[in-house]
Amino acid sequence: MTRKSFANADCGVSQAVEQIGDKWSLVILRSAFLGLRRFDEFRRHLDIAPNILADRLGKLVEHGIFSSGKNCTDGRTIDYKLTAKGLDLYPMVIFLNQWSERWSPKPEGPRLEFRHRETGGEIKAVRVETLDGTQVDARQTEFEQGPGGSAVYEEAQKLITRRKLNSAH
Amino acid sequence: MTRKSFANADCGVSQAVEQIGDKWSLVILRSAFLGLRRFDEFRRHLDIAPNILADRLGKLVEHGIFSSGKNCTDGRTIDYKLTAKGLDLYPMVIFLNQWSERWSPKPEGPRLEFRHRETGGEIKAVRVETLDGTQVDARQTEFEQGPGGSAVYEEAQKLITRRKLNSAH
Repeated sequence: MTRKSFANADCGVSQAVEQIGDKWSLVILRSAFLGLRRFDEFRRHLDIAPNILADRLGKLVEHGIFSSGKNCTDGRTIDYKLTAKGLDLYPMVIFLNQWSERWSPKPEGPRLEFRHRETGGEIKAVRVETLDGTQVDARQTEFEQGPGGSAVYEEAQKLITRRKLNSAH
Repeated sequence: MTRKSFANADCGVSQAVEQIGDKWSLVILRSAFLGLRRFDEFRRHLDIAPNILADRLGKLVEHGIFSSGKNCTDGRTIDYKLTAKGLDLYPMVIFLNQWSERWSPKPEGPRLEFRHRETGGEIKAVRVETLDGTQVDARQTEFEQGPGGSAVYEEAQKLITRRKLNSAH
């Protein structure tokens, strides 16, 4: 095969997408951040077919995003808990909520309101910033291959260069 | 039907997931942020079947994430450009890349390095913060229904309360 797919290639975004880039996985994560942790809780909350839920939870456990283990109290029920790697997805979940509230707001106002538990401080928009806190958008950012550079970026550059050469004719 | 699915319900995260929560849509977005904009560029970069690509680009246009229009130079080619709503997904794309670099780093180092174009300032980790810049994780955050509150959160609370009551027995 000479096909080169950059869908699940050596690229940080693709690697993440392989692990969580699926409708069900994303809403399961949402529900987990809302506090759910049992198979039956997810099943009821999402009205999801048990085989699909089992498949997605299994994959999320396999990727180390959830850990599964018998519940301490009754020793029978299986709990699915977010691991450190899973908890580290919090900015994505908060971002997706904020993005929807910005682009499809409800006339009444936001669905949920978030606060720092201790100080009551309001949560700000999740954004891309430089170390000194300056917000940057896609156009203000530049990137180049790092030491672990891969062909994903290089091939994109080739396609862009080709387009520009053709446009110049 | 009495089924209540909170998969594509009145919830910010679900609404976002309905629009972009799909492997192909996410990698198309990644490639667009790398600078690609033509059907054929996406097709080559992702080695994606043309009918799937057309479907996903069509949906992304429908959701106002891309705009499509004839290229100014040749008047024939269709360009797919990120709209303001699409460009606003930048924090998610940067986050997914950072998350992968944190949890599945390459021994050589990061694949890509990002900088502020003007100042050369390094890009920091995309995270959840309060207005004063204090980082907060999921456990340090609390949330409650806002004025546009929906059943998604309420039903999650009911399931959690039921679990706690049962555990207390």
